[in-house]
Amino acid sequence: MTATLNPTRTIAELKELRALTGDENGAQRVAWTDTWARARAWMREKLAELPVEVETDEAGNVWATLRGASERALLIGGHIDSVPNGGWLDGCLNVLAGLEVLRRIATEGTPPVTVRLVDWADEEGARFGRSLFGSSAFSGNLEPEELAELRDRAGTSLPDALAAHGVDLRQAKLAGRQAAGAAAYLELHIEQGPVLEGLGLPLGVVIGTFGVERHAITFTGQAAHAGSTPMDRRRDAFAAAAKLGLEIRAIARRHGGVCTVGSCVTKPGIVTAVVGECTITLDQRHMEAAALAAMLREAQEASARFAEEEGCGVAWEPIWKIRPIPFHPELIALGEAAIREVCGSAHRLPSGPLHDAAEVARAGIPTVMLFVQSLRGISHNRIEDTLEEHLALSVQALDRLASATIDWICSRPQFAARGPTAPRASG
Amino acid sequence: MTATLNPTRTIAELKELRALTGDENGAQRVAWTDTWARARAWMREKLAELPVEVETDEAGNVWATLRGASERALLIGGHIDSVPNGGWLDGCLNVLAGLEVLRRIATEGTPPVTVRLVDWADEEGARFGRSLFGSSAFSGNLEPEELAELRDRAGTSLPDALAAHGVDLRQAKLAGRQAAGAAAYLELHIEQGPVLEGLGLPLGVVIGTFGVERHAITFTGQAAHAGSTPMDRRRDAFAAAAKLGLEIRAIARRHGGVCTVGSCVTKPGIVTAVVGECTITLDQRHMEAAALAAMLREAQEASARFAEEEGCGVAWEPIWKIRPIPFHPELIALGEAAIREVCGSAHRLPSGPLHDAAEVARAGIPTVMLFVQSLRGISHNRIEDTLEEHLALSVQALDRLASATIDWICSRPQFAARGPTAPRASG
Repeated sequence: MTATLNPTRTIAELKELRALTGDENGAQRVAWTDTWARARAWMREKLAELPVEVETDEAGNVWATLRGASERALLIGGHIDSVPNGGWLDGCLNVLAGLEVLRRIATEGTPPVTVRLVDWADEEGARFGRSLFGSSAFSGNLEPEELAELRDRAGTSLPDALAAHGVDLRQAKLAGRQAAGAAAYLELHIEQGPVLEGLGLPLGVVIGTFGVERHAITFTGQAAHAGSTPMDRRRDAFAAAAKLGLEIRAIARRHGGVCTVGSCVTKPGIVTAVVGECTITLDQRHMEAAALAAMLREAQEASARFAEEEGCGVAWEPIWKIRPIPFHPELIALGEAAIREVCGSAHRLPSGPLHDAAEVARAGIPTVMLFVQSLRGISHNRIEDTLEEHLALSVQALDRLASATIDWICSRPQFAARGPTAPRASG
Repeated sequence: MTATLNPTRTIAELKELRALTGDENGAQRVAWTDTWARARAWMREKLAELPVEVETDEAGNVWATLRGASERALLIGGHIDSVPNGGWLDGCLNVLAGLEVLRRIATEGTPPVTVRLVDWADEEGARFGRSLFGSSAFSGNLEPEELAELRDRAGTSLPDALAAHGVDLRQAKLAGRQAAGAAAYLELHIEQGPVLEGLGLPLGVVIGTFGVERHAITFTGQAAHAGSTPMDRRRDAFAAAAKLGLEIRAIARRHGGVCTVGSCVTKPGIVTAVVGECTITLDQRHMEAAALAAMLREAQEASARFAEEEGCGVAWEPIWKIRPIPFHPELIALGEAAIREVCGSAHRLPSGPLHDAAEVARAGIPTVMLFVQSLRGISHNRIEDTLEEHLALSVQALDRLASATIDWICSRPQFAARGPTAPRASG
C-alpha cells in the first residue's frame, strides 16, 4: 500500500461535492449550468493545492497536468457533470479518485511520465441530448455543425449555452491537440448494472464498450373496430410487435448480447380499435461485431416473419449505431492484476453504456476502465449507491493500475525510442 | 313487392345529404353543430311532404309520427349525426330508409298501429365523448349531472352546446315519455365489420349487442439501462404486456368472443432503457354474460402468471363495462324471414359496436336490428361504403320487417287486451 493514498478522503470529498451540488432529488450537476460550474470551481480549489498546471481546452474539458520526466502522458479521466436528479457517484467518482492518485504521485516527486487528470465536459448530454461532448471533440468524432441547431427545453441553443461557459462550438475540435503525448487512458466508473453485485465482487476490469445497433421498427396493419372485427379478420400491428418484443430475448441469449424494446407506440391507440400501426424501438448491443450483425439480421428476419403472420407490413428505420470498441489487451491485464492485488479476485466484463473512455480508445490511445459494484445496478437516480468499502477499494485499485501503467508506458518501444526528456519544473 | 317503395330514391337522398353535409374528408354531421342542424332541417323538409306530426323531445331526438288505428307504436330509428370525417351511411342510412318505409305505409292509408320514425340526437358522442346521448335519455340511462362538466376541444361545455340547439340538459330525461305506447323498435345499420362481406351475404339479422369489459392493465417492473442490464436480470414490463397481448387472442378464440389490446404505453419509454412500467388497454366482448366473465377471469389469471414470470407487479383498473343486450327472439326471427324473402339467405350475428337499439332494448321495448354489408368492414372513415344493390336490398328488407312487425304487434296479448283505439286524423 502507498502510504499517502487516502481513499477515505475521496469518500469525504464525494460527500462534500454532493452537499454542494445536490438536493433532495439527487445530483444536479447538469453540464453548462451554474451548478456544474460551481462543482468545477470547487474542484479547482482542490487542484490548487497540488503542483499541477490547470487549463480548460476549446471543448470545455479541464486538464490538470503533473509534469513528469517525459512528455509521454498517462491520462486519468472522468466527468463531474451529472444527469438531473442523478446519483452521487456517476462520473465524479473518477474525477475525485484521480485527484487522490494525483496527490499520491505528486508527493513522490517528479514522475517518470507526465500524469494528467481530465474532467470531460458534458459526458451525459442531459441538456441537449448529445452525450460525450468533450471526449468526442478530443477524439475528433464531434461534428459541430450537427450540434449547432440543438436547443434545450427552454429554447436555449447549444452554442449559446456553451458560449456562456466560454466555449466556442466552432473551435471545440481543437481540443484534439490535448492528445499529443497521450500514452494511456484510465477511467474508473460505477458499473451502473447488476453484474458485479450478482457475482459478489467489488471490482471488475472492462474489456471494451458494446457495439450498438438502434432502430425504430414500425408494423403497419389495419385499424379496425374492436367490437365488429372477428379475431380471424384482424391485421393487428400490436400483435406483430409483441411477438418481436419476446423473440429478441431469445436472439440476445443465443448470442450472449443484450436486446431491448424500450418504447412502444400504438396508433390509433384507443381502447376500441385494433392497433393499425405500432412502432417499437430496438436497442441491440454486443462486444463482437459479427455477433451484433447476426443479432440484427435475426431480428430483421423475425420481424418479417411476424409481419407476414399478422398480415402486416414492417419497416425499419435506423436511429444510431456504433461499432464495438475493445480496450487495450495489455491494459486489461494490468487492470485485472491491480484488482486482484487489492481485493483478491477480478472479473472481466463489457460495458453496456458508452463512456468517455470509448472516445479516447477511438482516438487510438491505449485505454482501459475499472468498474466498481453498483448496488441494485441502479444509476441515473438519486438512490444510486455503492458500499463505502468498495469505493475505498476502487481508489486503491485505480492507484495500483496508475503505477503499473506508468511502468508499462516506460517499457514501451515508443518510449524507449524517444527516451525520457529532461524533467521540468512543476506547479 | 310493395308498389310504392322506392329504394332508389333512398340512395339518391343519401347522396343528396352527402353533398349537403360532407366535404372531401367525409361526412361532417357532428351533433350539436351547424352542419348537423342543416342535415336535420333538410330532413324536416322531406318529412313535411308526409302526413306525419314532427316534434323534438327534451333530449333533442326528432320524432315523426304517423298516427295509426292504435296508439301502440312501431318505432324505426337511426341517427343523422356522424363522426368528423365520417362515412356517408353510418346512422343516416336508417333515417332515410325509415323515411321511405314511412312513405310507403302512409300511401296505404291509416296503419293498424302508430308508426314513428326517430332521429336520435348525438349517437356518436364525437364532440363530447358521450355516445348514445338521445337514446339513453329516452331509456333512462343518462345521468345529466355526470355530463354537465364535459367540454369539447374548444372549451365549450356540453350544456352550452345543447342549449344552442334548444336542449336543456337538466330536462333531457323527460324524453323517456316518448316510450309510451312503444311496442317494437327496428333499426337498420351498416355492419361496420367484415363478417357479411366474408360470407358473401348482403344482409344479416342482429341477435343483440355484445357485453363489454374494458380495463387498463399496468405491469410494473424495473426501468434499467439497456446496455448494462443482462437479460436474466431484467424485470421487463413490456415483455409481460406482450405476453398478455398475445394470450388474449387464444382466450377470445376459446370462447368465441373478441379481445383487443388497443393501446400500449411504455415508461420511461426511451430506446436505452428496459421498460419499467407498461400500461395496455383490454377490450373484451361477448354475447353471453357467462362467457364474457370467463374471458375476463382468464385474462386476469394470465396477467398474474406473466407478471410473475417477468418479476413484475400487475394492477387492473376498470374503464367501462356493459352487460350483453340480447334482442327480442321473435323479432330476430321476423328479421331473418324478411331478409330471406328479399335476398334468399340470412345470417344471425351479434353487434360488436353499441347502437341506439341497445338503449331501446334496455328500456324493455322489443327490439331488433338489421345489418347490411360494409365493404372492407371499414367505417368512421370517408372510404366507408356499401354496394348500391345492397343498400336497395336493405331498404326492402326493412320495409318487409316493418310490415311483419306491425302484424306481430297486432297479434300480441297486450294489444288484444287494450284493443285498437279509434283512428285519429293524421298529418
